[in-house]
Amino acid sequence: MGRWEPDAAGRLAQAALALYAERGYEQTTVLDIAERAGVTERTFFRHFADKREVLFDRSNALQEAVVAAIAAAPDGLPPLEIVGEAMERAGAFLDDRREYAQKRAAAIAANPSLQERELLKMATLGSAVAAALRARGVPSPSAAIAAEAGIAIFRLGFERWVSDAAAPDLPACIRDALASLRALTAG
Amino acid sequence: MGRWEPDAAGRLAQAALALYAERGYEQTTVLDIAERAGVTERTFFRHFADKREVLFDRSNALQEAVVAAIAAAPDGLPPLEIVGEAMERAGAFLDDRREYAQKRAAAIAANPSLQERELLKMATLGSAVAAALRARGVPSPSAAIAAEAGIAIFRLGFERWVSDAAAPDLPACIRDALASLRALTAG
Repeated sequence: MGRWEPDAAGRLAQAALALYAERGYEQTTVLDIAERAGVTERTFFRHFADKREVLFDRSNALQEAVVAAIAAAPDGLPPLEIVGEAMERAGAFLDDRREYAQKRAAAIAANPSLQERELLKMATLGSAVAAALRARGVPSPSAAIAAEAGIAIFRLGFERWVSDAAAPDLPACIRDALASLRALTAG
Repeated sequence: MGRWEPDAAGRLAQAALALYAERGYEQTTVLDIAERAGVTERTFFRHFADKREVLFDRSNALQEAVVAAIAAAPDGLPPLEIVGEAMERAGAFLDDRREYAQKRAAAIAANPSLQERELLKMATLGSAVAAALRARGVPSPSAAIAAEAGIAIFRLGFERWVSDAAAPDLPACIRDALASLRALTAG
């Protein structure tokens, strides 16, 4: 168990991850996870709707951080700059838990049902980014494309950060991905 | 029932779409879909693994068309040009079924479980695009970012095509989305 063990939700996430790695997602029940975390099934369901959600305990907080960063960006910045900054902020939010992120990515990669949930979370984040841009007055088509670009650079940066031992911190990986996107589209 | 009714798989897709619209995805069973299409449950399962897959009957063919277009692109083109062309090809593949696509998009938008499957299909398409680019010798990071960009422009073009009555055909919507992406990243 890592040093990140502040509360029941966190313990449940760690327990779920360990069990998915040991015996597989399909073979793990909510009761198994609760027992491993030292809580009741009832406590599990106070925190999470199902055994997929337990791996997405920080999705809402992440999305709130991204939306707040977009709302707080200085006036006059181009949409892609705003989104790039916000995604770096999201990266900073996750950056202290690389080992957890690696284990979590492995669990998700091994299971289509978890992949689907991860993709839905990213799509939801994308919609929130587009809405936050529109709230700043960015026109709808630009907001949509900037949001798609933002999700793409977040995903690429994240993937490098969890898979490449020589990668820099997560905000830097996201920054590099934006630079790659600019180079690709200019090329 | 539209003019597109060539075979059991197609009839099952139309029947599923009609039932999801009438009574909702959750309230529809595989047996309901088979009966509406005039086939047996057994025939349903010869074509589709479950009642989500029935709305993705052309995913494999679409992916094959995209991968083939990437493989067949002339030498010396930049990766994003190759991907843009391939995505337009994918658009041409779907362009004759706009009304079906609109109904299908409505069904998917109404159901998180179908959204997740749709997102997984798009992610799978993205991985296939990246692999097809690498097979042409495009280096891995460029292939990944070009694939993400390709999926983004496909999604944006598709969304405009199904939601905006004044939109041009699907290949043109995808081409416009690529132009918007270039403008955004250059701006």
